[in-house]
Order: sequence, then structure tokens, then C-alpha cells
Amino acid sequence: MIKCVVEVSARHIHLSQADFVKLFGPTAELSEKNKLSIKTDFATPYTVTLVNGDKKLEGVRVIGPFRPRTQIEISLTDARHMDVEPHIRLSGELSGTPGVTVSGDFGKTCLREGVIVAQRHLHIGMESANKLGLRAGMIVNLVVGGERGALLKNIMVRLATVDQPTVHVDTDEANAIGLPAGGSGEILIK
Amino acid sequence: MIKCVVEVSARHIHLSQADFVKLFGPTAELSEKNKLSIKTDFATPYTVTLVNGDKKLEGVRVIGPFRPRTQIEISLTDARHMDVEPHIRLSGELSGTPGVTVSGDFGKTCLREGVIVAQRHLHIGMESANKLGLRAGMIVNLVVGGERGALLKNIMVRLATVDQPTVHVDTDEANAIGLPAGGSGEILIK
Repeated sequence: MIKCVVEVSARHIHLSQADFVKLFGPTAELSEKNKLSIKTDFATPYTVTLVNGDKKLEGVRVIGPFRPRTQIEISLTDARHMDVEPHIRLSGELSGTPGVTVSGDFGKTCLREGVIVAQRHLHIGMESANKLGLRAGMIVNLVVGGERGALLKNIMVRLATVDQPTVHVDTDEANAIGLPAGGSGEILIK
Repeated sequence: MIKCVVEVSARHIHLSQADFVKLFGPTAELSEKNKLSIKTDFATPYTVTLVNGDKKLEGVRVIGPFRPRTQIEISLTDARHMDVEPHIRLSGELSGTPGVTVSGDFGKTCLREGVIVAQRHLHIGMESANKLGLRAGMIVNLVVGGERGALLKNIMVRLATVDQPTVHVDTDEANAIGLPAGGSGEILIK
């Protein structure tokens, strides 16, 4: 078993440059508010509101840098609240997913697709992965202790620039395993 | 391994008779809207709103019959939303838990304590329990398959009048294991 960090991904949005301009205007810049453990990503000072009919989710954080396509990551609890059909997907796999309207300080954009519930996954550096015989796309398990101790299956391995092996779960998963503020666990390779 | 039903407990409230009268008036009756799998309990037509400062949760279902003390069961997601400190407890263990204001059609009541996040548990009939060597208070594991397959530890055994062994999880746990509408699993006795 390999020790890992467990981080909670709160609902967030990755924007294409075109959608960013629609939402925050032509003079806005995608600046950095704080760094994230995945060193290629950063939190920005911007938030958006997601709208689906009369349902809303406010304060959804914009994560940089720009992506080729806008992608929204929410939990199953959020999906039920927003009345959108949940699709559990890996980042980037947006085909056939539902859309919502996204509203920013300057304007809005109506997405035809792009809303996913992220499949839980392990970010691991290339060197650590090689040592452990892990490759991108492999499936591992996460073991956590405590009063809501659990073993979560189907954790997808992804290569990333991280200091430590880091599992990303959503807020539902974090609550279910009693780590609403994140914590640590162990990776069990099958 | 023993097959079991997995049911989702949405947020709900059990009321004392005194609190019911405060909330719904002296002439209201705690009638049955529909039966529940635990045959001693039933859903009522009544809902309440939970209030903590400027935070609210509306449409919280009242479950009958009356209990000696009012008890509110919410998820960790709800606890965070309501800004109350979550205590993962068995039903009835209310000492030191937070309180909220409860509002009904007729009036309201300010609880000093009574809000819990229910510890996940297995309801099982006496006869089945005896066959399996299970006693109230023992701890078992729940195994579920599917794309969010998992093993949830610390499932507390409770004796109840049920047709089938039935695990109760909250909405966070149900979402984390991919069973937001409930489903089935297997009990693993350690």
C-alpha cells in the first residue's frame, strides 16, 4: 500500500478562452488567485453561476489555465439539485453530457454540453508511477480509516506534476468517507 | 456474503409530541402518508424548515411515530450548508449535538440539541440475525459494485422489523457509491 493525499474537488469550471471573454468581458485577464496541488492548474479570482431553468448554483470557482473546451465539474448532489442528468466521466470526455447556462459578471453563455461528475482519480508523478508499475488509465483502490472508513474502487490513474500521489474525490465522496476537508489514505494496487 | 437492500435516508425529522403540537398546532394529527421499509416507522404528510441564522433547509420530511425526543438527521453536505457542526451518531444518541430552529405551518421550536448525521447501519430481523450470528451493535461492511463500487466499513447492526436486511446510508454515501436512488449490495461479516 502507498500513502497518498486525499483532496476534495469542490464544484468548479474550466473555461475556454472564448467563453471566458463572453462571461467576463474582452479586457478581463485569467489571473491566478492561488496555486493548486496539480501544478499546471490554478484557482482564479473569478466565480460563475450555473443556471438550469429555475435551478441555480452560485459561486462556482473558475480554474485556469484555459482549456480547449469549457468543462463543469459538479457532484451528484449538485446534479440532483440542478436537475441535470449526471454523467460520471474523466476530465475531457464531454460527448453527450448535459449543458447548462453559465453566467459571469459581464455576460453569459449557453453550453450544449460540458457538465460532468468527475470520476475519482489518482494524480501521480511519472517517476513514482514507474516505481510502482502504474500507468495512466490503470484502476486502483483507495483505502481510508476513521469512523467512516472505506475502500473506494475504480480510482483512475492519471499522470500529473504533483509533489505526492494525490487522490481527487468530489464532495459527496469526501463526506461519505468522513474527510470533508480532505486528508490521507492509502492506494491499494489490485 | 449476504445480499441486502441499500436504502437512502434523505434528511428527515422525528418529533416529540410536544414539538409536533408547537409546529403544527393542537388539532393536527400525525397521520401516515406512506409506509417505510422499517415497519414501525412511517412518512407523514408534514414537512418542516430547519433554520440556523441565515441558513435554511426546506421540505424536511416528518417521520412518525412520535419519539421521546425530537431528532433531526441530515447529511454532512447539509451540515456544511447549515453551518452546524456534524456529529456522526446512532439514532437516539443526542447528547452534545447541535440544535437548530425548526419551523412548521403553525409555529416553531428552538432545539438546544438533536441534529445528527446518522451512522450508516444495517436493519435486520431477529431471525435473520440469529441465523447469521449477528447481534445488535456489531459492525459489518457493505460491498457494492458498479462504476462507483466500494466497501463501506463501520455499518452498525440494528434489529428491526424488516422484510429483508436493509442498509441505510445518507445521500452523501449513496452518491459516493453511485446509488443515489438506492439499490442492492452485500454484507461482509468480518
